[in-house]
Amino acid sequence: MAKDEFKEFRLVGTRPDRPDGLDKVTGRARYGADISAPGMLWGAVVRSPHAHARIVSIDTSRAEALEGVKAVVTRADFPTGLTGEDWDLQENTMAGERALYDGHAVAAVAATSKLRAEEAARLIDVTYEVLPHVIDVDDAIKPDAPVIREGAADATVPEGMPPNVVRYMEFGHGNVEAGFAEADLVREGHYKTEATHQGYIEPHACLGQLGGDGKGEMWVCTQGQWFIRKMCAGVLGLDAAQLRVTPSEIGGGFGGKTTIFMEPLSLALSRKAGGKPVKIVMTRSEVLRATGPTASASMDVRIGMKKDGTLTAARAEFRMQGGAFPGSPVDMALYCAFAPYKLDHVAHVGYDVLANRPKCAAYRAPGSPMGAFAVESLIDEMCRELGLDPMEVRLKNAVREGDRASYGPKFASIGLVETLEATRAHPNLAEPLGPNQGRGVASGYWFNHNGETSVSLAISEDGTAQVSIGTPDIGGSRASIALMTAETLGIPYEDVRVNVVETGALGVNEPTHGSRATFASGKAAVLAAGQAITEMCRRAAAEWGIEPEAVEWVDGAAQPAGPNAGKFPPMSIAEIAGKMGETGGPISGHHESVPEGVGASFGCHVVDVEVDPETGRVTILRYLVVQDAGRAIHPAYVEGQYQGGAAQGIGWALNEAYIYDDKGRLQNPVFLDYRVPVASDLPMIDTVIVEVPNPGHPYGVRGVGETGITPPLPAIANAIQDATGARLRALPMNPPAVLAALKAARGA
Amino acid sequence: MAKDEFKEFRLVGTRPDRPDGLDKVTGRARYGADISAPGMLWGAVVRSPHAHARIVSIDTSRAEALEGVKAVVTRADFPTGLTGEDWDLQENTMAGERALYDGHAVAAVAATSKLRAEEAARLIDVTYEVLPHVIDVDDAIKPDAPVIREGAADATVPEGMPPNVVRYMEFGHGNVEAGFAEADLVREGHYKTEATHQGYIEPHACLGQLGGDGKGEMWVCTQGQWFIRKMCAGVLGLDAAQLRVTPSEIGGGFGGKTTIFMEPLSLALSRKAGGKPVKIVMTRSEVLRATGPTASASMDVRIGMKKDGTLTAARAEFRMQGGAFPGSPVDMALYCAFAPYKLDHVAHVGYDVLANRPKCAAYRAPGSPMGAFAVESLIDEMCRELGLDPMEVRLKNAVREGDRASYGPKFASIGLVETLEATRAHPNLAEPLGPNQGRGVASGYWFNHNGETSVSLAISEDGTAQVSIGTPDIGGSRASIALMTAETLGIPYEDVRVNVVETGALGVNEPTHGSRATFASGKAAVLAAGQAITEMCRRAAAEWGIEPEAVEWVDGAAQPAGPNAGKFPPMSIAEIAGKMGETGGPISGHHESVPEGVGASFGCHVVDVEVDPETGRVTILRYLVVQDAGRAIHPAYVEGQYQGGAAQGIGWALNEAYIYDDKGRLQNPVFLDYRVPVASDLPMIDTVIVEVPNPGHPYGVRGVGETGITPPLPAIANAIQDATGARLRALPMNPPAVLAALKAARGA
Repeated sequence: MAKDEFKEFRLVGTRPDRPDGLDKVTGRARYGADISAPGMLWGAVVRSPHAHARIVSIDTSRAEALEGVKAVVTRADFPTGLTGEDWDLQENTMAGERALYDGHAVAAVAATSKLRAEEAARLIDVTYEVLPHVIDVDDAIKPDAPVIREGAADATVPEGMPPNVVRYMEFGHGNVEAGFAEADLVREGHYKTEATHQGYIEPHACLGQLGGDGKGEMWVCTQGQWFIRKMCAGVLGLDAAQLRVTPSEIGGGFGGKTTIFMEPLSLALSRKAGGKPVKIVMTRSEVLRATGPTASASMDVRIGMKKDGTLTAARAEFRMQGGAFPGSPVDMALYCAFAPYKLDHVAHVGYDVLANRPKCAAYRAPGSPMGAFAVESLIDEMCRELGLDPMEVRLKNAVREGDRASYGPKFASIGLVETLEATRAHPNLAEPLGPNQGRGVASGYWFNHNGETSVSLAISEDGTAQVSIGTPDIGGSRASIALMTAETLGIPYEDVRVNVVETGALGVNEPTHGSRATFASGKAAVLAAGQAITEMCRRAAAEWGIEPEAVEWVDGAAQPAGPNAGKFPPMSIAEIAGKMGETGGPISGHHESVPEGVGASFGCHVVDVEVDPETGRVTILRYLVVQDAGRAIHPAYVEGQYQGGAAQGIGWALNEAYIYDDKGRLQNPVFLDYRVPVASDLPMIDTVIVEVPNPGHPYGVRGVGETGITPPLPAIANAIQDATGARLRALPMNPPAVLAALKAARGA
Repeated sequence: MAKDEFKEFRLVGTRPDRPDGLDKVTGRARYGADISAPGMLWGAVVRSPHAHARIVSIDTSRAEALEGVKAVVTRADFPTGLTGEDWDLQENTMAGERALYDGHAVAAVAATSKLRAEEAARLIDVTYEVLPHVIDVDDAIKPDAPVIREGAADATVPEGMPPNVVRYMEFGHGNVEAGFAEADLVREGHYKTEATHQGYIEPHACLGQLGGDGKGEMWVCTQGQWFIRKMCAGVLGLDAAQLRVTPSEIGGGFGGKTTIFMEPLSLALSRKAGGKPVKIVMTRSEVLRATGPTASASMDVRIGMKKDGTLTAARAEFRMQGGAFPGSPVDMALYCAFAPYKLDHVAHVGYDVLANRPKCAAYRAPGSPMGAFAVESLIDEMCRELGLDPMEVRLKNAVREGDRASYGPKFASIGLVETLEATRAHPNLAEPLGPNQGRGVASGYWFNHNGETSVSLAISEDGTAQVSIGTPDIGGSRASIALMTAETLGIPYEDVRVNVVETGALGVNEPTHGSRATFASGKAAVLAAGQAITEMCRRAAAEWGIEPEAVEWVDGAAQPAGPNAGKFPPMSIAEIAGKMGETGGPISGHHESVPEGVGASFGCHVVDVEVDPETGRVTILRYLVVQDAGRAIHPAYVEGQYQGGAAQGIGWALNEAYIYDDKGRLQNPVFLDYRVPVASDLPMIDTVIVEVPNPGHPYGVRGVGETGITPPLPAIANAIQDATGARLRALPMNPPAVLAALKAARGA
């Protein structure tokens, strides 16, 4: 049997060691806090203890008098006149007239040691006039709520809306009232989700240096060095090209490291300290109080269903607060909410609302988990009411290639049906359940993103190759891109090094976000490798004295083809590379684009839980993730993404939440109190990789990073109802909440 | 009057602040020793105290037992079986069976502190069997000289040559005997020059890290990060792409930092220490004993001249020792020796000879100063004998475009005649001379080099631009490349940042050597900028709905041209860049090649000296450098190169030399004893930039870095004869040597 019958690729789909593996297990990998520079200062940030307060005065004199203090900055040290997103970023990184949330930066100091800087920060005297505040999204949207910012509403907000509504949207298609009229059952539910934090293991850290000449350098833990560059340049009024940003190794981001927090403070302090480098490393408390968690949501969903499970219409009205600035992912939540369902009649309404909380950032499939919590919960309730199998209902209504998505466009190639069928066939669904045990199912969706992408590839003198990418490696993309590059060049995996490079060495790149790194940087790497191959064939042709078109690239070597086949022995990449200096110079390949052909990804999760009727504690017995990867370049890292998404979703479902006191102060800004799942909380999470290749990618890749966080929220709620009969419609479903629901269900 | 009548360019030819200026005056610039890493170790090197010795044994046990010692390496830790240049490099960085020169590394150690490493190095017990040695080139070429390496001669060496001759060459054209027969005067001279060191202010320093997975990183002070990569990979048996080499800021190189010395030791130590980074910083003594000075030379020249100054024939026989390894620049010395002269009959013979000295490295116009010392001295002597003006003789015999060079090829566009005419017209030549004062003239030549070059350019979102180059900035090339890029893009100089990037981020580049950086990286940057302009015009055309060919780039903006002229307002680079994400993605440009069109550079120097008849001390009264720059992109840095070359040449002429005792041990390995000129030794050096634009470069650039070191050696010898009547034919012309010559002249 020929090899090709069983193995389409030589390397794609294998599971080699990750290139950064040894670095990470030996401590050689350098993370954000691992960099230092000669003459370095340490920065510390003074933060508002109030949820909302007018800054009456800031007296920095005691701090400035302290020995070893080299610079103090307040908002007065930042340029004025900014607008739009630049202003939001500036205001969020350093408060102006008012502190808008507990933890909002109001001043920063740089000194010769970390302790000295912290001491100096305590000597900065800020006088506040405390103002009324609002935390909850349903409170914030009230007409008489404390006003976070006058005039912040954009043009989408109709006259007469409550003052904290800053963006408004409505969209859909068909006629939902007609659709509801076709239904046998119409149900409506109200759902709430709490803000959660990405909980990355590595706190934000940076080392910034900025001279009076406007030239700066930054070493920073980030998902996107160009975003850091652009945002810092915007906030500080610098030329982007004059700032070089080098990303460190990164201990998780999940969307939370795609924006700036203390980075411009480090640069502003450095500039004021005569260009000395300034290092700032956040504490966990600072991370939780003052970086970007996700939004909290209040959602109403109405769905019409026929007795056979056919959905006739759906309507969603979502309200989200994303902190004291516009930007909650309410739009994304609406786009994703009904995405797994073919709907002729659908309507969406969304409100982006301000509250006295930190400015939200992206968090893995931003918005999608909230929408899914509402919609997938309600569909499950309706299936129960009609006695339908929720898997069959999902299959019956599943969208396919060419269908119109609930949010408008037509779907290209997608693998929802294949995913649902693989789920239905999985042995986990046949496992018997005992008392107080239940099973829940839910689907999830993420668009996946392409984004601006620049990749360069260079052949070394010995025929090994390097790929310069601009997307930091969070989930194993160095491995997957090395596999694809080596596959394309026809050389061993070990002969390719994938380097995440600084902004000064490559064209613009969006961050590693939107599940785009392996898709977009990978596609660009393959196209760049193709350019290098063309050039190498050209050089072989020149040496052989034949037309370049008469040369083909096979197994890492140029060989004469067509009428010239066999006329010359193949010329290997090492041979061609070894004489590149005499044959035209360096051999490289480049690609810049917003790569087309993104493939959306659907997933389906099945969870078995046991609910302790005495305490309300929910134990995850079994967990299954089934998701379409397009093609899994390095299956182990795809499985890792599936498991990681599920784990974060489980935490969001069961325990995680921002807890505020009545003064609007965060009560749980440490990992002892903000409780992410630990290993002992979870079983091994089962995974099934469905492969419906994405025709828009040379190796069929779909992004896989985000979809997996979406289904756990409703799947667990559905499982709890299955186990107990109690339906929870608000997160987190922690023991007190479950116990209350059990009591209510018993009482009912 | 229109601006263009007087100013061809907007930026090229202006003198803005250098981009790295503030960095360098504030200490923000990071040099080789400025980097550190978490868990870093320090390395120290054990060096041979003998000029030639068999290594009987190395006992590392006492060192390994010392607390804090993490690794000891000897040659046994290096791969075996290397050949050719890789073997030479390996043998030079770590001695094998024999130590070949005073200072040759025999072991290295890494420990937790610098002092501990130095202590451990002293505890390594090496037993030597001292062997006979040879230092002087004329001794080394004797048939019975101690043999440095059996079988080292390459195929060019005829049977029966002395054992230390490893390369032999003879070339020329015409019939020199016939040429000499045409002459009115035939004279022959014997000349010697001593080895000198580049004397860069910054000693070698590196921080290397290498894991068991073959992946390494290196931060290093170098002229060429890819050479470091290739050489370390060769010496250690690594894949080139797996080693990322980042160049630090560099405190001078002059050719001496184009190769490896302790860099592979740092990597080998790191690998043995479990991948911990190892830093090695050389002392000045190590730099002088164990890096790469230039060769010493013994030269015989014979020239025929007619009474009117016409040269009829010339012959040169040069012997050079470049240390214990092949590679003296005897070939280059021969190529350059007669280059300023049109000669129908010329013959060259060269011997590359081994001696017990450190392996020579490149030093500014390698070989050219030695050859010029011999030839320009002899021509001056002959002019004196015939009563001819040495300027007129040089003009009469000057090569012009299309002439056959003394070393073979035809000259392309060159500016020797213009240079000599500018020299003749300079007021310095009319300055009166007093007693014991004299004037000397000499010409100099350097080919200039192109070399493998990769450059990438990227436009930022705000319309500023960055250029990634691979040639470390030694003489202001960041400024000159920013000027050319900004000129081409039509944007301000301040809007361009030129970044010297690491090997992992760009295709292969040769070092900053051969006066190539502004020519080659500059030309590549201009071509890359042209690519970006084409792409920006394409995007403007797409927005306007016209053909890309109907758009031209004027003053930093796309504007409709031809029949579309004036139809749309110009679209600036900032406008185009601001929406690149929506119009096709990142905008970049790239260029890889061995850029054609190198322009050779001639110079002529005039020096006035005063010789103290009591002490023999030579004082430089006045110094003039006239040289063809093609076009001076940043004239201040061109002048700096002229002055720097002259200063180094003056040091070589008057004071610098490697002084060995009878055991072959270097006696002056510190700057107190190895005496480079200091500011008080020199007058302000006058410069004239001749501009005969090089048609092979978009802005006419010729390399300017090297030619300037060539004429000082003979010019000063000629001036001393003019002042005193004494002719010195050996360097250095320090007070004892001059005094001896004066006495000999008086005695004669």
